[in-house]
Amino acid sequence: MIDPDLHYRLATLNAEYARAIDDDRLEAWPEFFLERCMYKVTTADNHRKGLEAGIIYAESKAMLQDRVSALRKANIYERQRYRHLLGLPAVLVQEPGAVHSEPPFLIARIVRDGATDLFATGRYVDRVAVNAGELKFAERIVVCDSARFDTLVALPL
Amino acid sequence: MIDPDLHYRLATLNAEYARAIDDDRLEAWPEFFLERCMYKVTTADNHRKGLEAGIIYAESKAMLQDRVSALRKANIYERQRYRHLLGLPAVLVQEPGAVHSEPPFLIARIVRDGATDLFATGRYVDRVAVNAGELKFAERIVVCDSARFDTLVALPL
Amino acid sequence: MIDPDLHYRLATLNAEYARAIDDDRLEAWPEFFLERCMYKVTTADNHRKGLEAGIIYAESKAMLQDRVSALRKANIYERQRYRHLLGLPAVLVQEPGAVHSEPPFLIARIVRDGATDLFATGRYVDRVAVNAGELKFAERIVVCDSARFDTLVALPL
Repeated sequence: MIDPDLHYRLATLNAEYARAIDDDRLEAWPEFFLERCMYKVTTADNHRKGLEAGIIYAESKAMLQDRVSALRKANIYERQRYRHLLGLPAVLVQEPGAVHSEPPFLIARIVRDGATDLFATGRYVDRVAVNAGELKFAERIVVCDSARFDTLVALPL
Repeated sequence: MIDPDLHYRLATLNAEYARAIDDDRLEAWPEFFLERCMYKVTTADNHRKGLEAGIIYAESKAMLQDRVSALRKANIYERQRYRHLLGLPAVLVQEPGAVHSEPPFLIARIVRDGATDLFATGRYVDRVAVNAGELKFAERIVVCDSARFDTLVALPL
Repeated sequence: MIDPDLHYRLATLNAEYARAIDDDRLEAWPEFFLERCMYKVTTADNHRKGLEAGIIYAESKAMLQDRVSALRKANIYERQRYRHLLGLPAVLVQEPGAVHSEPPFLIARIVRDGATDLFATGRYVDRVAVNAGELKFAERIVVCDSARFDTLVALPL
């Protein structure tokens, strides 16, 4: 059986991650990752087929920071916001110093002066590094259920 | 006050149930139930009126397994997927060997090459058998908020 | 680090709050608040600008009870229902006798003989009084993400 305390900390990590994005504290987002890491947005179909390419791909915290700078310049956050709702993370594998976990997500998008819609659903496929009690993402693959993807994917999922 | 450990295990049971369906591991779904059990899908209106009939009704694990076989033959899962988001289960009654619990749910439906929509919301009305630390559904009544029901209800909710 | 037990109790408080509303036990809703309290519904834009006015405003449990009586007379609940889905509450500040917490929410609206739609998303900005193990809302500000607001906002969010 999974350690309830680890489960609790994973749930808290995910809640804080979502909160940073939804509160427009984008600069805090790369801090949830290791210096060398992998962040990818892909679809369930492509993930099942083992296709490596993603819609968005980054392999270091520096790349995530660059992405945030670009988003700030483009003023993306002026025009839309997200609201993440997360389910309990499934804990799949525990290995020394890391845990594999998959929390499901639903993201609503709020367009300025517009409607709120169901933007994306899916699951995160995560490898979380556990170091002296601190949890950081070594890998986070955002596996979206739908293959139909908004070309506006811009904010972190 | 409810035992936090039992509450945690109920939340985990529900997360795993949702995950099996959403990951297309339908064959794992009947395993969450006792051999003799009750699974029913109904509406809040009918549930309140005490109407016994459900849109879907099964009273054994074998019937649930038959249902999965039928779904596989009809290739339902080729055309649509679900994504369950669950709230914390309310724990209502604890009796020897069983607990009555009601987790709320929201299910998004992802149609192949199509849109994602808000398919159903509601609550599960559950009697969960607790046996030597293992939790199985003795009864799961899926009480959908809306009376307007998609005739395509096919996948397990 | 936040006390997991307090976190658990906040999550349970929020689940029970949502359940009372979604089950149409509106009379139970004011009981989640202190006698002198603050309940407000506002938008993220107005909250950020520090605007005090809210779409709905109450400063005592008695005002909340009056609101419930008015809703009952208007038969609002005959025509629509809500379903709340909540995320884990972020615990921000702990002070003697109180805790500041922010759980995210998504509310679906089920209209009688009609469709289910994504009614509102946002976060609660809460000050929760902790007294002899009992948790009550001293303040609950419902900060809705969207500025576009349905004039039908009537049921408690």
